[in-house]
Amino acid sequence: MKKNTFSIGIDYGTNSVRALIVNTSTGEEIGTSVYNYPSGADGIIIDNRDPHLARQNPKDYIAGLTSTVKNAVKQAKKHKEFSPDKIIGIGVDTTGSTPLPVDKDGTPLALLDEFSDNPNAMAWLWKDHTSRKEAEEITEEAHKSKPDYTKFCGGTYSSEWFFAKILRLARVDKKVFDAAASFVEHCDWIPALLVGNTDPKTMKRSICAAGHKAMFNKKAWKGLPSQKFFSKIDKRLDGIIDKLYSEAYSADEKVGGICKEWAKKLGLKEGTAVTVGAFDAHLGAVGSGIKPGVLVKILGTSTCDMMVFPQSAKLGFIPGLCGIVEGSILPKYYGLEAGQSAVGDIFNWIVNQLVPEKTAKKAGKNIHGYLIKQGLKMKPGSSGLLALDWNNGNRTVLVDQNLTGQITGLTIGTTVEEIYRAYIEATAFGARAIIERMAEYGVKAKSVVTAGGLAEKNPLLMQIYADVLQMPMKLSSSSQTCALGSAMCGAVAGGSHKNLALAQKAMCGLKDIVYKPKAANVKVYNQLYALYKKLHDGFGTPKFKANYFDVMKELLKIRAEAHE
Amino acid sequence: MKKNTFSIGIDYGTNSVRALIVNTSTGEEIGTSVYNYPSGADGIIIDNRDPHLARQNPKDYIAGLTSTVKNAVKQAKKHKEFSPDKIIGIGVDTTGSTPLPVDKDGTPLALLDEFSDNPNAMAWLWKDHTSRKEAEEITEEAHKSKPDYTKFCGGTYSSEWFFAKILRLARVDKKVFDAAASFVEHCDWIPALLVGNTDPKTMKRSICAAGHKAMFNKKAWKGLPSQKFFSKIDKRLDGIIDKLYSEAYSADEKVGGICKEWAKKLGLKEGTAVTVGAFDAHLGAVGSGIKPGVLVKILGTSTCDMMVFPQSAKLGFIPGLCGIVEGSILPKYYGLEAGQSAVGDIFNWIVNQLVPEKTAKKAGKNIHGYLIKQGLKMKPGSSGLLALDWNNGNRTVLVDQNLTGQITGLTIGTTVEEIYRAYIEATAFGARAIIERMAEYGVKAKSVVTAGGLAEKNPLLMQIYADVLQMPMKLSSSSQTCALGSAMCGAVAGGSHKNLALAQKAMCGLKDIVYKPKAANVKVYNQLYALYKKLHDGFGTPKFKANYFDVMKELLKIRAEAHE
Repeated sequence: MKKNTFSIGIDYGTNSVRALIVNTSTGEEIGTSVYNYPSGADGIIIDNRDPHLARQNPKDYIAGLTSTVKNAVKQAKKHKEFSPDKIIGIGVDTTGSTPLPVDKDGTPLALLDEFSDNPNAMAWLWKDHTSRKEAEEITEEAHKSKPDYTKFCGGTYSSEWFFAKILRLARVDKKVFDAAASFVEHCDWIPALLVGNTDPKTMKRSICAAGHKAMFNKKAWKGLPSQKFFSKIDKRLDGIIDKLYSEAYSADEKVGGICKEWAKKLGLKEGTAVTVGAFDAHLGAVGSGIKPGVLVKILGTSTCDMMVFPQSAKLGFIPGLCGIVEGSILPKYYGLEAGQSAVGDIFNWIVNQLVPEKTAKKAGKNIHGYLIKQGLKMKPGSSGLLALDWNNGNRTVLVDQNLTGQITGLTIGTTVEEIYRAYIEATAFGARAIIERMAEYGVKAKSVVTAGGLAEKNPLLMQIYADVLQMPMKLSSSSQTCALGSAMCGAVAGGSHKNLALAQKAMCGLKDIVYKPKAANVKVYNQLYALYKKLHDGFGTPKFKANYFDVMKELLKIRAEAHE
Repeated sequence: MKKNTFSIGIDYGTNSVRALIVNTSTGEEIGTSVYNYPSGADGIIIDNRDPHLARQNPKDYIAGLTSTVKNAVKQAKKHKEFSPDKIIGIGVDTTGSTPLPVDKDGTPLALLDEFSDNPNAMAWLWKDHTSRKEAEEITEEAHKSKPDYTKFCGGTYSSEWFFAKILRLARVDKKVFDAAASFVEHCDWIPALLVGNTDPKTMKRSICAAGHKAMFNKKAWKGLPSQKFFSKIDKRLDGIIDKLYSEAYSADEKVGGICKEWAKKLGLKEGTAVTVGAFDAHLGAVGSGIKPGVLVKILGTSTCDMMVFPQSAKLGFIPGLCGIVEGSILPKYYGLEAGQSAVGDIFNWIVNQLVPEKTAKKAGKNIHGYLIKQGLKMKPGSSGLLALDWNNGNRTVLVDQNLTGQITGLTIGTTVEEIYRAYIEATAFGARAIIERMAEYGVKAKSVVTAGGLAEKNPLLMQIYADVLQMPMKLSSSSQTCALGSAMCGAVAGGSHKNLALAQKAMCGLKDIVYKPKAANVKVYNQLYALYKKLHDGFGTPKFKANYFDVMKELLKIRAEAHE
């Protein structure tokens, strides 16, 4: 371990980019800076005629890169041990799948005068849902083909992903599509830019993006799906594979040294190591200390649940997971990704749509805080309510956007405080369904480390999750785990640590507080979870024959017991 | 038909009593007065230690009788054709089952000094739910016995009913129970008081109360259930049948003439005909012009749905109905009673618990009015929501208090306006389930006449009901149909009409507005009702095996179609 060196993590989010400078021996965070994308609405180019469209201007990415690194360095300079020449590596994470059409030099088309105002030439942000039809066609063709290319990404190709967006572009904007020599993920383009080689033919692509969003699998089908597969879907995709790549790399691999031009722009030493990019959640898992047996849960408007499993061990296909990709989180480990489509989004919905004036008045400015406080006074089961957390569909394990939320057990005395708590419980039950699915296939979690704002702000949620999941809930000590994970990759590529595991040992930490399961609550939640599972399977799977008659009786019984 | 005569209807409600003076030839309402019971909370004696307790002080009944009749007469005097000596009859309706323990003279024990402060000696108001355990025991014993005495009252004896309350009293207050020579319904006691003969042995009891709440059936088992039946349940009920009655009468029968004392108190002519009492909803049905093929729906916090069917025709047992009683609404007709446990109560719950500040601000003072206005802008099916209207259990046709409400189809965009409309639809579906059940057994409704505040205030509800029930929805022209029905009984007993049918012809009317089914809406509601029925049967009946997988898919499809 090299002492007294530093690395930078650059974390591109949905509305802003952040740079973080970290001590590679201690993990101490000594400089940080955030840049809000100036374009569009909060950094997102939207179209009032189509609510599904969401793009980003690559100009914002460049401006943000310069601004945040320079400001973070400036802040770090206040630290006596730091000087810019002690920075040994740079790691990058971004949202994804966020592909950009580029010319033969790897320049995003939106940076050319010809296309500068055309949203189709910009980055297609992860949450762009214009390609639903295209995603369905890809899924359908994959299910017909052998091998089924969606096998390692949950069995359903999403409109948020790489090829659905490329196909959509081919159909809606021939001019842009024809001008594109290749398509690169946001997380591939930034490292390439920094090392001064954006040639799409030689650019080092991220295994995280390739494996989770582009059906890339080296072992199963030697890389991307076949050209034939895409040509069958649409002739416009003829030749697409030649424009792409056949290798992909883990985020601890070095792309190269930072080029003279960018070293100067950022005030860094030329040649500083730049690593392969990856997605934010995956590097967030790295920054949260992910290792076998630890599930990392990034808790936000939705969740991302990640685990790793040694590639040396046998691991079958796990139905319903968003992805199982070798080296996508840690090298030599399968990276497993799952997630819940709405968590914080549901709580925000309740606060925005269902909190009556009298409650709002009592709550003051912090309505979430008030509902949490009230929820903490209730006993599990006491409301008689049971919700299904599908208000935005179900990502894992049902992989079905056409599911909706439900709440059962309502009376003429039900309060919004009870509904709020019931929905927290529902998201906990949804989390348990994911954990049980992975355990069934041999990937067992023993504890959960959470990152993201919700974990810190919502002690009610953390206790309920501990009780429902029956394992300790821990909090990552960093509040910027994605940037930290990127910085750790930079530290490895820069030679400060031999590998990511050692980097994690040195640089990761946990908060002191641990939420532990309480036996009395566990008992009630086991009863409630059985009912949840019954509704979950009954409403969520096609061939389940169930007798639901006991559901409400049981709820009332549990409620009565809770009030005893 | 005697011209230029008048009759009085006295209508005892939950919080107040009302008197109404009506022209017997035209139905014109020329005098009315309301008296709010002064005792307890809004007229109800409650106990903070037991939320299920609800009693009334018979002193309030007497004070209200004098006050309302005198004030109504005073108001009527402004009418040139009226003079008090032209009043030919008095009819009475009350809530029920609301029994009072009385001494051997028929004086309510609460009117004796010894018991004046004891809630157990007062009237046990219909909504007193302290006797749940006792009701269950009666149901259980009835199911074991032959005949099953609950056969004509839905198969489940309710805690709101006569014998459950008597048994409860026997257990909790031996002193009061032992002091009671008999138990009389509120609707039996008032007419007895007016004619000056409250002797419980000769008092004329109401067939409406006896048949619907006390398992009285002359044809099937010669009156009340056997003494043996009650003794088996609890030895404390030994001898109870001897304290009660073996005959019961329709509300158009005369009890006698008003006695000198009460004629003087009220300023009426001695000997004026007083009729047998009945329950408010049943006389409301009379006042709304009930006849074969017309369902009368009293729409309030809950509903009461009533039909009549000729006794000359064959009518089997209809499972799930609250009661099938000969002559309980009109003489020579079976009176059929059904109901929904919560309708207006659910809408009030939404307004009180779930309307956010921003909506309340837009709505101003009349939140219901605002939600109705917004609901009128929505198309059937457009919210994707489907609710089960069981927030207060299900009275008909499932007869199960242990059911709760449910709402399915929630998203992170669902608004309270949509929830409000979805719940109106749910109550309409519940109403349809009742109508279909009766039709299945040969009692077919061709139109619905509604009475009660909701019908007048909620055009959204009326249109949805027309569309869901697929029949015209009409409104009773009187806003005091219960008192009007009582006055009609008084008119028959006083000789102005030969029978109630003729009294209805002369004295009932309908408002001009009729809500008719709209074909496009009917189509969508048929689809939604099929889903409702699936959830209804799946969650509400013990032996239903269902595959619910298509429910949400279908909802989304219907929603998409509605937005096309």
